[in-house]
Amino acid sequence: MSEKTIPYKIYLEESEMPKAWYNVRADMKNKPAPLLDPKTHQPMTEKDLAPVFCDELIRQELDDKTAYIEIPEEIRNFYKMYRPSPLVRAYCLEEKLQTPAKIYYKFEGNNTSGSHKLNSAIAQAYYAKQQGLTGVTTETGAGQWGTALSMACSYFGLDCKVYMVKCSYEQKPFRREVMRTYGASVTPSPSLETEVGKKILAQFPGTTGSLGCAISEAVEKASATEGYRYVLGSVLNQVMLHQSVIGLETKIAMDKYDIKPDVIIGCAGGGSNLGGLISPFVGEMLRGENDYKIIAVEPASCPSLTRGKYAYDYCDTGMVCPLSKMYTLGSGYIPAPNHAGGLRYHGMNSTLSQLYEDGYMSAVSLPQTDVFEAAETFARVEGILPAPESSHAIKVAIDEAMKCKETGEEKTILFGLTGTGYFDMYAYEKFHNGVMENYVPTEEEIQKALAKLPQID
Amino acid sequence: MSEKTIPYKIYLEESEMPKAWYNVRADMKNKPAPLLDPKTHQPMTEKDLAPVFCDELIRQELDDKTAYIEIPEEIRNFYKMYRPSPLVRAYCLEEKLQTPAKIYYKFEGNNTSGSHKLNSAIAQAYYAKQQGLTGVTTETGAGQWGTALSMACSYFGLDCKVYMVKCSYEQKPFRREVMRTYGASVTPSPSLETEVGKKILAQFPGTTGSLGCAISEAVEKASATEGYRYVLGSVLNQVMLHQSVIGLETKIAMDKYDIKPDVIIGCAGGGSNLGGLISPFVGEMLRGENDYKIIAVEPASCPSLTRGKYAYDYCDTGMVCPLSKMYTLGSGYIPAPNHAGGLRYHGMNSTLSQLYEDGYMSAVSLPQTDVFEAAETFARVEGILPAPESSHAIKVAIDEAMKCKETGEEKTILFGLTGTGYFDMYAYEKFHNGVMENYVPTEEEIQKALAKLPQID
Repeated sequence: MSEKTIPYKIYLEESEMPKAWYNVRADMKNKPAPLLDPKTHQPMTEKDLAPVFCDELIRQELDDKTAYIEIPEEIRNFYKMYRPSPLVRAYCLEEKLQTPAKIYYKFEGNNTSGSHKLNSAIAQAYYAKQQGLTGVTTETGAGQWGTALSMACSYFGLDCKVYMVKCSYEQKPFRREVMRTYGASVTPSPSLETEVGKKILAQFPGTTGSLGCAISEAVEKASATEGYRYVLGSVLNQVMLHQSVIGLETKIAMDKYDIKPDVIIGCAGGGSNLGGLISPFVGEMLRGENDYKIIAVEPASCPSLTRGKYAYDYCDTGMVCPLSKMYTLGSGYIPAPNHAGGLRYHGMNSTLSQLYEDGYMSAVSLPQTDVFEAAETFARVEGILPAPESSHAIKVAIDEAMKCKETGEEKTILFGLTGTGYFDMYAYEKFHNGVMENYVPTEEEIQKALAKLPQID
Repeated sequence: MSEKTIPYKIYLEESEMPKAWYNVRADMKNKPAPLLDPKTHQPMTEKDLAPVFCDELIRQELDDKTAYIEIPEEIRNFYKMYRPSPLVRAYCLEEKLQTPAKIYYKFEGNNTSGSHKLNSAIAQAYYAKQQGLTGVTTETGAGQWGTALSMACSYFGLDCKVYMVKCSYEQKPFRREVMRTYGASVTPSPSLETEVGKKILAQFPGTTGSLGCAISEAVEKASATEGYRYVLGSVLNQVMLHQSVIGLETKIAMDKYDIKPDVIIGCAGGGSNLGGLISPFVGEMLRGENDYKIIAVEPASCPSLTRGKYAYDYCDTGMVCPLSKMYTLGSGYIPAPNHAGGLRYHGMNSTLSQLYEDGYMSAVSLPQTDVFEAAETFARVEGILPAPESSHAIKVAIDEAMKCKETGEEKTILFGLTGTGYFDMYAYEKFHNGVMENYVPTEEEIQKALAKLPQID
């Protein structure tokens, strides 16, 4: 098909939308390592996880054999409200860069949560409802996940209790109000509502909280409340499974127009968006059918893939969650302030960690001023105001396109535009005013945090 | 076609998108009254308007004969970045209301300006660029228009100078930063940059500004700056012309699925969105081909159609703009604080005013707590966080659907969802906390403002 016929935006018909998620673990020879009990260091079973997580989600978490898992009709109906998301040909960005490269992005920001998080939130809320639960708890940092879960719970009539990292709660009151609009209760963390919160507050009275601490509170609350379970928006394999809808839609749309990406780029925090986008493409690589260059992009201030260690680690500060084998900076690592709140987690999804270990993808880290510069360039020509997280992928896409300009190669570049930056204007303001700082941890700081990793045989 | 086959969202193919705007005035027997010179009270000519407005836009403003005006290819290419906007079947809202009515909405919020304003902004920036101008000035209240114009100017490489009503500038710093991201310069109004601003500040030192005052400053600045013109985001007929793309897309999508709306609802401030949505439908009414029930919805605090007078009035506080015959509350009317900033203008587009006068549409006004209640109901089931302005239309759509529930009628209801509420969370917070006030002006207040209308023979 000639290039001229490729529209600015490719939308799938409802009938073309994926009917099953793709579980990339099924095609991996080296499976990701199992979750371990934080006390016994033995692999966690369905039964071990049942007090905290929803039953069906546990099955999905532990299933590394089934390649395709059907998306229930109720979830597909909800998806229809905001999906398919558009696959956009960045004609204007290409022209601005004067590059021979062809740039595409899958835009996940066209829903009220402002990001891809809704893809998994609705699935998790659905399975909680199916199990007859009355509510769920969770944590949120930047706020996208909390918003997405609030929307999903509102749709299915579930209670939603969100522990929001205190500094975010204070700095982003509007995020909080969006969640309240969807009927969620939002508590700044650490709080006096939980034992772990009380303990942390006693130890560090002035603390503004952390994601790891909010996770511990949400887990405790779920365990202590009848009819409640805990849900998580990233890091877990079930989340990557649900997010595969991003990659599946992208693949269907590209196949329809005979487009094959040479380079696939995604920002990486806990790994949910990157994992979702690349799943079907990596599947082809694992099965030896095709080859792609895959690049994970992380902030220089929280470089788990580029400077972390592949090891078992705690997922939360309170050390109540299972141990996961992953690229990690150590659960005690506290990233310097960075405006990409969604990329400030110390570890990486275990499946992506294994794929990275096995050479299926590469990783780079970026200082945040470079990221915001790319964000502004992109906004001005493509019209979308990108989230700081997403802008990490934009920056590398631009870099790759500029390399093509030098070499004359007509590569096809695909990146994930995970969300919008409407609630991040404080960060943009700092950038405009020239007072945004770049922080890169010293090797000593990294080693100090890594030294505290648990010793697992 | 059976109802089952109607998707949640109808997207047109690029090839189906309108190639011309529709100028409803061409089909009106009673044309809207001409703009008058504020000093001589004579009809304004192209030449009179040229120092302030762009040449081609003046031609469009004065042309009440040409039914279809071609959309230049450059504008159509820009439209492709965020259009066609989806026509959404509100299946979830229908189910929530348990109504036999079929509800559709045309969603214009899927672009960074957050509203339909971009449809006209890109056209106005294009014609300014074509004329060889270097920049444009404008005013903004709620901020959608300023954002849209910043985006459009950034795309065509034009300077953009925005006078932002001071209270908005202070209350919505993030709106300001979005405009700066697109390279616009933003000045709180009234300012010391203009004579009219200085005069107003001398007279009312503590004033937080008004839209009418910001217009006067922007007009003065444009007239005084070489290579600049003034552009306006609502009220004018050229804006309604550009916004007809909303109605045209809607009509094409509905015709494709054999859907005929019985009721068409839009919120009404200056009239740009309502006018755009209803244009092709009213055209059919004017030509005697079809009949629709059209409802304009305005806030009780600024009820120009429902409680104003059809008369010539000033468009701005400084009385430098042309006089327009319109439904107005008087240019001196200061609406009480209301969170639908886009609906706080004292007058209504002259074409819509004439259509209303001639009985082609009806109007209702609403207290804002009712509006926010409808907004929340809508957000929880349809997933979109609506702007306060748009929520006026939502409330009436729900009311109409509930009437159908009583009577059993299966009416088809169409409304315009003009934008998103991401920058309006302060208003939502007030609503959640039960401290939102409703203000309805007394008859005495209305009459006092109307008494100051200019006397035109």
